[in-house]
Amino acid sequence: MSTKDLEDIECTADHYSYLKRDEKYNRLTEEHVNYFKSILPKENVICSFDDSEKELLKFNVDWMKKYRGQSQLVLLPTCTEEVSKCLKYCNDNKLAVVPQSGNSGLVGGSVPVFDEIIISTKAMNKIIDFDDMSGVLICNAGCVLADLEAYASERGFMIPLDMGSKKYCCIGGNVSSNAGGLRYLRYGSLHSNVLGLEVVLPNGQIIENLSRLRKDSTGYDIKQLFIGAEGTLGIVTNVAISTPRKPKAINAVLLSTNSWENVQVIYKKAKEELQEIISAFEFFDEHAYSLVKKHMNMTAPLKQANEFYILIETHGSNREHDDAKLNAFLDTIKKLNVVQEGYVSKDDKQTRSFWVMRESVPVACSMNGAVFKYDLSIPMATLYNVAVDMRKRLMEANVYRPGDETSEVFNVAAYGHIGDGNIHLNISCKNYSKKITDLIEPYIYEWTQEHNGVISGEHGLGLMKGAYLGYSKSSVMIDIMQNIKNLLDPNNIMNPYKYLPKKMITKLSDIKN
Amino acid sequence: MSTKDLEDIECTADHYSYLKRDEKYNRLTEEHVNYFKSILPKENVICSFDDSEKELLKFNVDWMKKYRGQSQLVLLPTCTEEVSKCLKYCNDNKLAVVPQSGNSGLVGGSVPVFDEIIISTKAMNKIIDFDDMSGVLICNAGCVLADLEAYASERGFMIPLDMGSKKYCCIGGNVSSNAGGLRYLRYGSLHSNVLGLEVVLPNGQIIENLSRLRKDSTGYDIKQLFIGAEGTLGIVTNVAISTPRKPKAINAVLLSTNSWENVQVIYKKAKEELQEIISAFEFFDEHAYSLVKKHMNMTAPLKQANEFYILIETHGSNREHDDAKLNAFLDTIKKLNVVQEGYVSKDDKQTRSFWVMRESVPVACSMNGAVFKYDLSIPMATLYNVAVDMRKRLMEANVYRPGDETSEVFNVAAYGHIGDGNIHLNISCKNYSKKITDLIEPYIYEWTQEHNGVISGEHGLGLMKGAYLGYSKSSVMIDIMQNIKNLLDPNNIMNPYKYLPKKMITKLSDIKN
Repeated sequence: MSTKDLEDIECTADHYSYLKRDEKYNRLTEEHVNYFKSILPKENVICSFDDSEKELLKFNVDWMKKYRGQSQLVLLPTCTEEVSKCLKYCNDNKLAVVPQSGNSGLVGGSVPVFDEIIISTKAMNKIIDFDDMSGVLICNAGCVLADLEAYASERGFMIPLDMGSKKYCCIGGNVSSNAGGLRYLRYGSLHSNVLGLEVVLPNGQIIENLSRLRKDSTGYDIKQLFIGAEGTLGIVTNVAISTPRKPKAINAVLLSTNSWENVQVIYKKAKEELQEIISAFEFFDEHAYSLVKKHMNMTAPLKQANEFYILIETHGSNREHDDAKLNAFLDTIKKLNVVQEGYVSKDDKQTRSFWVMRESVPVACSMNGAVFKYDLSIPMATLYNVAVDMRKRLMEANVYRPGDETSEVFNVAAYGHIGDGNIHLNISCKNYSKKITDLIEPYIYEWTQEHNGVISGEHGLGLMKGAYLGYSKSSVMIDIMQNIKNLLDPNNIMNPYKYLPKKMITKLSDIKN
Repeated sequence: MSTKDLEDIECTADHYSYLKRDEKYNRLTEEHVNYFKSILPKENVICSFDDSEKELLKFNVDWMKKYRGQSQLVLLPTCTEEVSKCLKYCNDNKLAVVPQSGNSGLVGGSVPVFDEIIISTKAMNKIIDFDDMSGVLICNAGCVLADLEAYASERGFMIPLDMGSKKYCCIGGNVSSNAGGLRYLRYGSLHSNVLGLEVVLPNGQIIENLSRLRKDSTGYDIKQLFIGAEGTLGIVTNVAISTPRKPKAINAVLLSTNSWENVQVIYKKAKEELQEIISAFEFFDEHAYSLVKKHMNMTAPLKQANEFYILIETHGSNREHDDAKLNAFLDTIKKLNVVQEGYVSKDDKQTRSFWVMRESVPVACSMNGAVFKYDLSIPMATLYNVAVDMRKRLMEANVYRPGDETSEVFNVAAYGHIGDGNIHLNISCKNYSKKITDLIEPYIYEWTQEHNGVISGEHGLGLMKGAYLGYSKSSVMIDIMQNIKNLLDPNNIMNPYKYLPKKMITKLSDIKN
């Protein structure tokens, strides 16, 4: 995308006019910039004072082109000590900061709202250590996920985290946003896979906790606070992550079925029969599939159209064993009459093609205009109802008229990680209009709360959902969060206006009035 | 054990004479007791004012008979609201509290030091909900681990946590001490398996976060702070835990080998070849085995004596497949000439007998007099050296003379969870003498620090290790812990004198002077 296109994007501060710059933060001066130039390599300070607006724009705009900040300064420290000096100076001088990593987030968490200084970890991208006995990998926060995957793979290991944005996202951002992804079902959460972190606090203090140990019961597990803090408590500079062995056999099966009840039966049977080898249980619905066919020129190797498509993957150490288990499982679900069609991948290439199709869904959803992306975690029984109810609501408001090309809403697609109870609802529209936004939000958050879900499973809060935190957490919990924030970032310089904003919305009436 | 025997145990306050009662805490009065009697069922208030000293003794003394508190009052609330009322009253009236669960801890964390009120969760032992789709179990904190295991097992599931004390320990205590145990290698940490917690804060506020969701990225993950907080921040009242499917096949193999280098090669090969089915990789050394033979009348089905004994267990869904993998693995390590003997269990009964032998090690270590128990997490390459060096040190001091029955130290046994890098060093002695204590501590903590380990892998800090926290965490981290403690428990009523004590020991010289 050219900088010309980026220039057309509306500034966040204009679009969300209720947001006001907090004047307690100082504005950037030449003196500030000179200080940063004195501690960082010259080329690692990008400033509008030096006519670098075009370069700055790439850091100011998010991946979805939905949010645009107005930072005048990007800092690219090359080591922890430089991050420490930058943050200490910002804290002492009341300069607001946005930590940025791969800038592939989906909630506007990694771009500024106003003129916050962007501190990017992109210049810190070295692998520090790998131990092939324990599988512990230690690396800089700015390492790109796909690079880490390639490094581990060469050594017979794998990163326990995988996602569509792996070529862009960095491990520091993954940790800071508590990323979930495609391997969560089998390999679990970053709360367990991250063994150690090095973090710079806003005052410049460095938490050295780059542990290589799988077990540690010495005191409160402080590092957990930074996993999912979205840069509001400090900047993660180094990560120690536990990597599992790379599987010797990867199999996959693509299924289609015609009801959510069947999806649940298939899931239950898969967990029962594929126990130790199941590595993913993903789905996309017919609406998502229609976009993949239309925009990506892909089709599933299945003959009939159906309501739900399921991708089950297995990771094991013996292909014959895994094939036998997978075939026994397919026999079971066929006998139960819950699956309409099933197709087992012939080889690794076809397995990969199934994943390309699944991973194309979010890309296809963004191929026309704007896309409202939701990332809900909801108990499985009612997980899909959110898509059904949302379509109904948008149709009743007459903004979604399937088949009518003048409809403001083009498509309401659902897909995600069934095994983790995590659904992504993507509402494709002409543009990010207030009318559509108001129809969706906070309705979708209220719906989620009523169905015992939370408003983010893996994308985080950022600017998009910070104000809606009250739909997922009690006031007691939000108070504790705020107190922890005040404790570690008393000047509130870290990623302000988001996550834990001053004004929270907890009832539908709050936003209507 | 009779109460008579318990009466002979020295009070903690006398044994550790440097501990002083903090006089900011009020002493118990009739008025206080009357309040508790007004809010709890009469039989759930056990007080020395009512001549219940003998019953109190069972709550005042720990499982190892190493620590003895002098509490005059035990409260057994039956629900969260009662816990809330009790804590609020204690907080308002500056009464110190020790939360207690199964009282099977190993670091003196769950018994009082002085006259702290014991709040036991033993009367809260109901299972609230189980969902056989997601495998999420929700239960009271006072549920005994073995009872939960039986409940899950009947439904085709298993608790991801197992340990020798399962008949006594309760899930609330497991969570509060961040228990590890025998299944950690495969099923991971409580930081990932605990999905939700309900916690009562010292001021009586209730954190309602009993989530059934596998994924949640809405704000700081506050519940993580209570996992491993050992009751210093509040009382866990309900737990939501993710349970995996129960394996259809469990196999085990017992091996012996003659060097630590070989142990490491075997571990690496086991992880490579048994990938998805390995569920445990445990060891005990010849010293531990000698105690098992002597005190427990058990022998391994192996012909020769050797230096290290390894128990490998597999969990899978198909016995034939697992047998094939296990046999291929055994062929590999035989060819590498790293194993002296190997014995595959014939059936479930024999698998169980292997585990009984492994689980008997800590019991056998405690069969004569006193036992100093250490629980170190250390990178694998030097994990066992701590035992070698400790034996050398004690022999040089002439307190450990193998073969001499008058020796003050009987045995220095090592065992534990190799796959998790967690070793238990058990030093069996005539009694808990100061002379032996001073020879071991803080030497063992210093050794651990020098070898990049931490002083607790799974037992926690408690009274035993709180003062030594500085050997495993930096002052920056300890400051953050202390600030979080002050935030949630400003009156410091929760489990005082332990965990984060006022005086920390961070250098050998601190204790020598």
